[in-house]
Amino acid sequence: MTEGAAAEFETRLKTVAEGAEDILDRLLGAATLPGEIARPARLLDAIRYSTLGGGKRLRPFLLVETARLFGVEGEGVFRAAAAVEMIHCYSLVHDDLPALDNDDLRRGRPTTHKAYDEATAILVGDGLLTYAFDVIADPATHQDAAIRAGLVLELARAAGFGGMIGGQVLDLEAEQSQAAHTTEAVIRLQSMKTGALLHFSVIAGAIIGNADARARAALSAYGLALGAAFQVADDILDVEADEAVLGKRAGKDAGRNKATLVAALGLEGARERRDRLAAEAIAALDCFSQGADAMILKEAARFVARRAS
Amino acid sequence: MTEGAAAEFETRLKTVAEGAEDILDRLLGAATLPGEIARPARLLDAIRYSTLGGGKRLRPFLLVETARLFGVEGEGVFRAAAAVEMIHCYSLVHDDLPALDNDDLRRGRPTTHKAYDEATAILVGDGLLTYAFDVIADPATHQDAAIRAGLVLELARAAGFGGMIGGQVLDLEAEQSQAAHTTEAVIRLQSMKTGALLHFSVIAGAIIGNADARARAALSAYGLALGAAFQVADDILDVEADEAVLGKRAGKDAGRNKATLVAALGLEGARERRDRLAAEAIAALDCFSQGADAMILKEAARFVARRAS
Repeated sequence: MTEGAAAEFETRLKTVAEGAEDILDRLLGAATLPGEIARPARLLDAIRYSTLGGGKRLRPFLLVETARLFGVEGEGVFRAAAAVEMIHCYSLVHDDLPALDNDDLRRGRPTTHKAYDEATAILVGDGLLTYAFDVIADPATHQDAAIRAGLVLELARAAGFGGMIGGQVLDLEAEQSQAAHTTEAVIRLQSMKTGALLHFSVIAGAIIGNADARARAALSAYGLALGAAFQVADDILDVEADEAVLGKRAGKDAGRNKATLVAALGLEGARERRDRLAAEAIAALDCFSQGADAMILKEAARFVARRAS
Repeated sequence: MTEGAAAEFETRLKTVAEGAEDILDRLLGAATLPGEIARPARLLDAIRYSTLGGGKRLRPFLLVETARLFGVEGEGVFRAAAAVEMIHCYSLVHDDLPALDNDDLRRGRPTTHKAYDEATAILVGDGLLTYAFDVIADPATHQDAAIRAGLVLELARAAGFGGMIGGQVLDLEAEQSQAAHTTEAVIRLQSMKTGALLHFSVIAGAIIGNADARARAALSAYGLALGAAFQVADDILDVEADEAVLGKRAGKDAGRNKATLVAALGLEGARERRDRLAAEAIAALDCFSQGADAMILKEAARFVARRAS
């Protein structure tokens, strides 16, 4: 709410992004780990290209800051944060493939199948998806096996048929259809494709933080609203932003009969929805209102609504 | 060793294959599960096409029979067996893609990207890979979270950079190279690409069966030898079998500078290696020699060496 909060948020966002970059760099390093056969060099190179050196690391941020709300910090939390970022990066690499969205640019750089080749991009995605579960299930992430198994289950569901994969299929179906998309259908699609992993990031922090049922319900509501706000903001950005700012071809969604909320609600309606959802996300955290950390999560909801890229 | 053992093996193989088919059918059913958004119909159809109605289910068989060696049977074991089969099926769907092996036929039917389309095949593979971890991490698979987390970790490693993914990358690199492949390089490649998941199937049974260190070491040796024997047998089959029997284009490996052990050792050398590895697998189980179940695992090694498809 104050300028101080916004400044502290920016500092934390930067700190967590650096921490996430560092742990990803170490997990995806060239060294042969104990018991592991040496990783093929070309694959490793392509994986690092697809994962390192960019992005706001919003999902790691949400996980780390939610765990911190309960006083839990450290290497294990960042390992879980790296796993969720690997899932995010895998989904981008596969979504960009010619058979899917056929995108040549991502964050202003050639997409993985353009920088390498299609076969490598498919395997990079498969490898990141698989490795994310390796990292989460490893005792180094959390000493309690019940928490590790719980994280695996939640992550697999967020990334699976009822989450990212299901949303991507609905997205493809929507694109191939010539009909206009109902607001309800677009919201459902987006809650699966993008919302589920953002929601998982918050819930994972709550699981690691051993949150009680009431706190977990509040954080779940926060995660759902934030995820929905994020995607409306993305749809709005696609219309508004020019290619140089966004680092991908802007206006592309409209040219493809993509299911977007700007198409369903109009630009003004989409902006209203975005701001209402951000306010909902913030209100969901009222039970934590005393601490500085909930303030940072609230600030994250404002950031998601106002971001320019 | 006896005809009785071979007959009992055939019966168990059929029984486990039917049990695996049944659990896959239920897990990949059309019903909406509690807490899950309805699965998109077309994706579900393609997933069922890629998973049901075929195959010897060798990996489920190894997992189920190894667990049974320790007296553990039932629904949870079959859930774990279904998870390993999902990983196997995902790898086939992705390996068949045009950017990778570009195969049109699999088990005598059009491959998934031929029967549907490339986008669907990519998402089917991603979905199966993700769902396998969901199934393994679910309390319905095992009541002990430490066992569930342990299975996730072993599976992720068998399927990951040091396992299937790494092997697939080495395979692509070998194919693109014009040089002859050393026997050592081919063995390493195959132990990653095919051996790791067969080995996991055995180890998963040992984990679920709560095997002690000595039994686990014996089973690990068995799984390694069996996995290696399986792949040599596959290379031999590729040369020998005609398309009608094998259900895929035979002789294709030779036309591509594929890294095979027939190319490296010659047909006779490959047959000797196959038989020696099967004998090694059988010998590794000598510490279990009293029970009927180890006999069935031994019979499985003979089956792998003599199979005609």
